[in-house]
Amino acid sequence: MIRVGILGASGYTALESMQWLLRHPQVTITAATSRQGNGSPVSEMHPSLFRRLEVPVEDLSNESLLERCDVVFSCLPHGASAHAVKDLLAMGGKVIDLSADYRLSTPELYKKWYEEEHPDAARLGSTPYGLPELFGEELRGVSLIANPGCYPTSAILPLAPILKEGLIDPNSIVVDSKSGISGAGRTPKVGTLYCETAESFHAYSVGNHRHQPEIVDILKRATGRDASVVFTPHLTPMERGIFSTIYVRPLEGVSANQVRECIAAAYDGQPFIRMVPGLPATRYTARTNYVDISVRSNQQWIILLCTIDNLVKGAAGAAVQNLNVMFGLDPTMALVD
Amino acid sequence: MIRVGILGASGYTALESMQWLLRHPQVTITAATSRQGNGSPVSEMHPSLFRRLEVPVEDLSNESLLERCDVVFSCLPHGASAHAVKDLLAMGGKVIDLSADYRLSTPELYKKWYEEEHPDAARLGSTPYGLPELFGEELRGVSLIANPGCYPTSAILPLAPILKEGLIDPNSIVVDSKSGISGAGRTPKVGTLYCETAESFHAYSVGNHRHQPEIVDILKRATGRDASVVFTPHLTPMERGIFSTIYVRPLEGVSANQVRECIAAAYDGQPFIRMVPGLPATRYTARTNYVDISVRSNQQWIILLCTIDNLVKGAAGAAVQNLNVMFGLDPTMALVD
Amino acid sequence: MIRVGILGASGYTALESMQWLLRHPQVTITAATSRQGNGSPVSEMHPSLFRRLEVPVEDLSNESLLERCDVVFSCLPHGASAHAVKDLLAMGGKVIDLSADYRLSTPELYKKWYEEEHPDAARLGSTPYGLPELFGEELRGVSLIANPGCYPTSAILPLAPILKEGLIDPNSIVVDSKSGISGAGRTPKVGTLYCETAESFHAYSVGNHRHQPEIVDILKRATGRDASVVFTPHLTPMERGIFSTIYVRPLEGVSANQVRECIAAAYDGQPFIRMVPGLPATRYTARTNYVDISVRSNQQWIILLCTIDNLVKGAAGAAVQNLNVMFGLDPTMALVD
Amino acid sequence: MIRVGILGASGYTALESMQWLLRHPQVTITAATSRQGNGSPVSEMHPSLFRRLEVPVEDLSNESLLERCDVVFSCLPHGASAHAVKDLLAMGGKVIDLSADYRLSTPELYKKWYEEEHPDAARLGSTPYGLPELFGEELRGVSLIANPGCYPTSAILPLAPILKEGLIDPNSIVVDSKSGISGAGRTPKVGTLYCETAESFHAYSVGNHRHQPEIVDILKRATGRDASVVFTPHLTPMERGIFSTIYVRPLEGVSANQVRECIAAAYDGQPFIRMVPGLPATRYTARTNYVDISVRSNQQWIILLCTIDNLVKGAAGAAVQNLNVMFGLDPTMALVD
Repeated sequence: MIRVGILGASGYTALESMQWLLRHPQVTITAATSRQGNGSPVSEMHPSLFRRLEVPVEDLSNESLLERCDVVFSCLPHGASAHAVKDLLAMGGKVIDLSADYRLSTPELYKKWYEEEHPDAARLGSTPYGLPELFGEELRGVSLIANPGCYPTSAILPLAPILKEGLIDPNSIVVDSKSGISGAGRTPKVGTLYCETAESFHAYSVGNHRHQPEIVDILKRATGRDASVVFTPHLTPMERGIFSTIYVRPLEGVSANQVRECIAAAYDGQPFIRMVPGLPATRYTARTNYVDISVRSNQQWIILLCTIDNLVKGAAGAAVQNLNVMFGLDPTMALVD
Repeated sequence: MIRVGILGASGYTALESMQWLLRHPQVTITAATSRQGNGSPVSEMHPSLFRRLEVPVEDLSNESLLERCDVVFSCLPHGASAHAVKDLLAMGGKVIDLSADYRLSTPELYKKWYEEEHPDAARLGSTPYGLPELFGEELRGVSLIANPGCYPTSAILPLAPILKEGLIDPNSIVVDSKSGISGAGRTPKVGTLYCETAESFHAYSVGNHRHQPEIVDILKRATGRDASVVFTPHLTPMERGIFSTIYVRPLEGVSANQVRECIAAAYDGQPFIRMVPGLPATRYTARTNYVDISVRSNQQWIILLCTIDNLVKGAAGAAVQNLNVMFGLDPTMALVD
Repeated sequence: MIRVGILGASGYTALESMQWLLRHPQVTITAATSRQGNGSPVSEMHPSLFRRLEVPVEDLSNESLLERCDVVFSCLPHGASAHAVKDLLAMGGKVIDLSADYRLSTPELYKKWYEEEHPDAARLGSTPYGLPELFGEELRGVSLIANPGCYPTSAILPLAPILKEGLIDPNSIVVDSKSGISGAGRTPKVGTLYCETAESFHAYSVGNHRHQPEIVDILKRATGRDASVVFTPHLTPMERGIFSTIYVRPLEGVSANQVRECIAAAYDGQPFIRMVPGLPATRYTARTNYVDISVRSNQQWIILLCTIDNLVKGAAGAAVQNLNVMFGLDPTMALVD
Repeated sequence: MIRVGILGASGYTALESMQWLLRHPQVTITAATSRQGNGSPVSEMHPSLFRRLEVPVEDLSNESLLERCDVVFSCLPHGASAHAVKDLLAMGGKVIDLSADYRLSTPELYKKWYEEEHPDAARLGSTPYGLPELFGEELRGVSLIANPGCYPTSAILPLAPILKEGLIDPNSIVVDSKSGISGAGRTPKVGTLYCETAESFHAYSVGNHRHQPEIVDILKRATGRDASVVFTPHLTPMERGIFSTIYVRPLEGVSANQVRECIAAAYDGQPFIRMVPGLPATRYTARTNYVDISVRSNQQWIILLCTIDNLVKGAAGAAVQNLNVMFGLDPTMALVD
C-alpha cells in the first residue's frame, strides 16, 4: 500500500483528493495536516468523511509527515507550497504539488506573475508538468510532479495537437473559460458567498489571470511553438466544472474535420479523453476524470469546446492519475469504474 | 390610460411584460390571450400575479382583442406572431412584437434562418428595430416595432459605436454569450428541466444560432458596415441574465481607452446604458432595464463585457421602453425608480 | 419628502431597504453609514445601485446622521443597534430598527437569549412590534418601531387569529421553517459559501433559535394567550424566501375550513395578506411584500403553509410599510404596483 | 458475474442505477430497455455514460430481456412495473422493483392510493420490503424485492426502533420532508423546469401523498405497532437529497439521549447508518448510500433529523444493496470505498 499524506487538508482540492484516494485499492491515507490541526478527526472539517476516513488533522512538521507517508499531496497555497516541497524533497520525499508553484518554466515568469521570488527556483524548468496525455514518459518515477492548473488543462489538451501539427494560426487563439465556484477556494470571502454568486455570472481577472502564461508556457513545452493566447475566466453559478470555448483560425484549407481527427489521433488510446459526438456539458464530466472535446466551425473560425471537472481532472483526479504514473500503476486506477 | 393586450400570455416574456406594465402609471392591462385560455384569471397560470392582476385569459379573436386594446404585445412564437401581427395591423392596431418575426431586413434572410416563407414579407426592411439607443427617431409614432433579440441586444449595443467609427477590424469579431435558462422558454422539454440544467454549463446551436444573422444585419443597419461575427450561445445555471464577452481586434494604434470613450460618447445621456467602472456581473442588471458595459484589453485584443437581463432589456423591459417611445412618453417610464 | 438614513449600509437588508426606498415617491435617501465608510459612493459596496443611488457611505456620528435624516433605518447587528437607537432617540430622532433589539417584551428574556444586558432596557415592553396587520394602531406616530424577525412574521401571522379565537390547542404547535441563504447575512463565513450551501439543505439552531421566544412572546401580546411552540429553522439553497409549514391540533369539532375563514376574516382588507387558492411557493412572493397563506388538513392535524420573502416582508418591505404607518402615509406606498 | 438488465432506462433512477452498477465488481449490465429504444447506445440518452457503458437501448420483450439477465432492475412507472414483474417472475426471473408496486401490504391499500387494481395482487403482503437494516433476513435468496420509497426510507429508519421500544407516543408523529427535484422524475413538466423550481421552495400533495400510507404500513410490519403519521413533502431547489425533520412526543420520562441510544443500538454494525455528532446536511450524504441521523429536543418534543440521497439510499443505492443481499454478497459491495 502506498501511504499518502495530505498537506493543507482544509480546502476543496484536499477534500476531493481524499475522496478519490479512498477509492484507490493501492493507497491508504495516513496523515492530514493543517495549521489549525489539533488532532481531531478530519470529518470535523469535512463531515461527509464521517466513518469513511478517521485520520486526525494535525499541525505536523515535515519530518513527522514524511515518516508516515510515501508521497505527499501538497494542497497548500502557492508560495507556502514551494517552501514545504523543497524541504520534503530534501529529506527524500515524493510530492505531487497541487499548487501553482512548479508549473512555470522559469523563475522570471514566476516572479512576474506571482509577484515574489520563487523559494525553490532551481527546480523550475525541470519539474515535469502533470498532464500524462502530453508528458507521460517524463512523469514515470520522478519525485515531484507539478499538478496542472484547471483552466490550462481545459485549454492545453485540445490545443496542443493542432498547434503542434501546424493546423492553426498561433496568433489568433481566444480561450473563453467558465468555471464553477469551487475554483475560488474555501476561504470565506464576500465574493464567493451563495448570495453573491448564485443567479449571477461574471468575468474576473480579465487580461491578467495567472493561468494565461501557464497555457502559453506549457503549449510551448508540449509543441515547441510560440502561441499568443487571450484568456478570459468567468465564474458560473455551479459548484464544479469548467467549460472552455476556444476560437482558433485554421490555416488555409484546414477543415474542422481535420482538426477533430488530429486531436482524436493524438489522444488515441488515452483513457480520459473523449471526443464526444454531441456538444459537451459540464454535467457529463462532473465527478469524473474525463475530458470531453467537441469541434465545430462558424464563419472563418474553428471552435473547440472542452469540459472537465475542475476539482477532478483539474485538480484531485489529475493528482491521483499522476500518482499512478509516478508509481508505475495503471493510470486509470481509482479513476474509472 | 393606454390599454395593453398580451397575445400569448403563458410564457416567461408575457409574465415579465405584465409585471413591468403593472408598474406603469399610464398603462392598464385589458386583455390576455392563450390558446388554452378559458376565461380563468391569469393568476392561475402565473400565481405570482394573484390579487395583482385579475384579467382573464381568453382565446380571443384578433377583432375582440383590438376592441379592448390600444396596443398589443405579441408574445407568440415566431411564424404565428407574424400571422397575427399582419391581421392586427390591417385592422388598424398597434403592435410591439416580441417574437423574431420582424427583426431581419429581408424575406430571403428570414427564410434561410427560420426555414419558412415569411407571412408578411413586405414589412421586412421597413419595420423599425426596437433599440431606441440606436434607432430612436425611427420608433416614434410607428404602428409596429420589432422588439430585439436578447443576445443581439447585448452584442449590438457595445459593438455598433466602435464599428461605425471604424476603430476595429470588422472581420475579427467573436461574441461568446452566456444566458440564463429562461431564454429557452416555458414549454416543457427534458433539456430545460432543473435536473439537467442546474450545476451544468453547455453551449448550444454552435455555429448556427438565429441570433448570429440578426447581429450582423442590425449592425449593418446601424452602422452601414458589413461585419463578420462568430457567435456562440451557452446556457448557464441561473434563471435570468445574459453575459456577452466580445473579442475584437482594434485597428492599429487604437487603445482600449479610445474604444471605451467612443462607446460612452455614443450613449451619453442614454438612461439605460451604464459604462461601469468595475467588471459587470449579471446580478447587477438582474430585474432592471440597464445595460452594463466594460472595456478591457489583453494581448492584441480588446474585450467588451456586456450584461443585460434577458427578460428585461432583452425582452419585456425593451418592449415597455419601446411602448414609451411609440406613444411619446418618457422612455424611462415604469423602468427606473 | 421624508429624508431617510441607513445605519449599517453594507449588508443585505440595507441593500434591499435602499432598493425599496428608491421606489418610494415620498422618500429620499440622504445618508448611508458604515464603519468602513470613507465617503465613496454606495455603489462601490453594492454595484447594482450604480447610477441609481449616489449617496456616499460615511462613518457618521449619530449627530451628523440626524442632521440629514427625518428617520433612520438601523441595519446594525443586535446590541450595536440598541446603543445607536438609544442615542438617536435621545436626540429626538425617529428609528425603524431592523435588528432584534426591541422585539422582545422584557430585559430578562433578552438577556436569556442574547446573552448580554440590554443597553436600553426601559424601552422593552413599550416599543411597538412592526406588524401593522396585528398592531396597526400602536404604530401610528411613534418614534421607534421594532421591525419583526423574518421567521416570526411567517409564523405569527397565520397563527395569531386562530390562537386568539381559541380554535387550536396552544400546546401542540410545530413550526418547521425553511429560509433562503440571505437570512444568514453578508459577513463571510465558510457556512454560507456557495460551495457549502448550494445543492444542500440543512437545519441549524435546532431547539435554540432566538426566533422561537420571539414567536411565543409576540403571540402572547397579540392574542393574550400562552402558547408552546417548537421551532426548527433550515437553510435551503436559494437566495431569498421563507416557507413555514405549521402543524396545529384543532380543538374538537374545528375544521380546516373554519381555520381558513378565521384567518381570512382577521386579515380582510389587509393589502399584503393573500389567502391563496393553491399551495404557496416562495417564488410567488419573491421580491414582493406579500404573505401567502394556505390551510390544509391531514390526519388529526391542520397544516398552515405560509410564504414570505425574508428580505421584503421579513425585513426591508416591512420596514417601508412601518415607515408608511409611522408617517401616516398609505401603508402600501412603494410596495404595490 | 451477475448479469443485470435495466427495465425503463430513460429516467434518473435508471441512470443512477447504471452508474452504481458500473462500480460493482460482480456485476455486468447486459441490457437496457425503453419504449423509445431503437438500439442506439445508452449514452445517447445519458451522455455521461459515453465510453463507460455501451449497452444498446432496446424495446425488448420480457423473454429477450430474461435471456440476457440474471436479475432485472425495474425502473418502470407504477402499474406498468407490476405487469412486467409478474411476467418476469412467471418466467423464473429475479427482480428488484424500484417502482411503488410491491411496497404496500394489501391490494385494498394499493387500490385506495394508486386508484387502480393491482395487476399482481397476490404478491402484496408477501413481497419483502428492501430495507436490509430492518428486514435483512427476509431478503436473502428471494426472487422479488420491493425497493423502498425515498421519503419512507428517511422516516422509517429513525422511527422504527423507538416506536418498537415504545419510547414515543405513536399518535403524535409529524414528518416534514424536503426533497431535491430529481424525486419528481425526468418526464418534462412545467413544474420541474429550472425556471419554476430554482430559487423556490414549495410543498405538494399536502395531506395526500402516497408515501404516507407506505410509512405507516411498513412501520407496522417492522414494529408490530400502529402509528398515526402526518407527512408533508416539499421540493427544494437542488438536484438530489432528502432531509426529513421528524417531531415525536416522548413518553413521560424518556430523554433525547435514550432515543438516540435506542436508534444507535438498533443499527449497531449496520454499515450505512451514521449517528452523526453534528447536524446533518444533505450535502454530506449526497452521492453516497449513507443515512445520517441526529437527535435533538425542544420544548416537549424530540426532533429526529435524517438525511439520505433520494437517488442512492432512496433508490439506486438501496437497489444495489438489495441485489447484494439477494445474491448473498457483502451488502456494501460497490457502495463503500
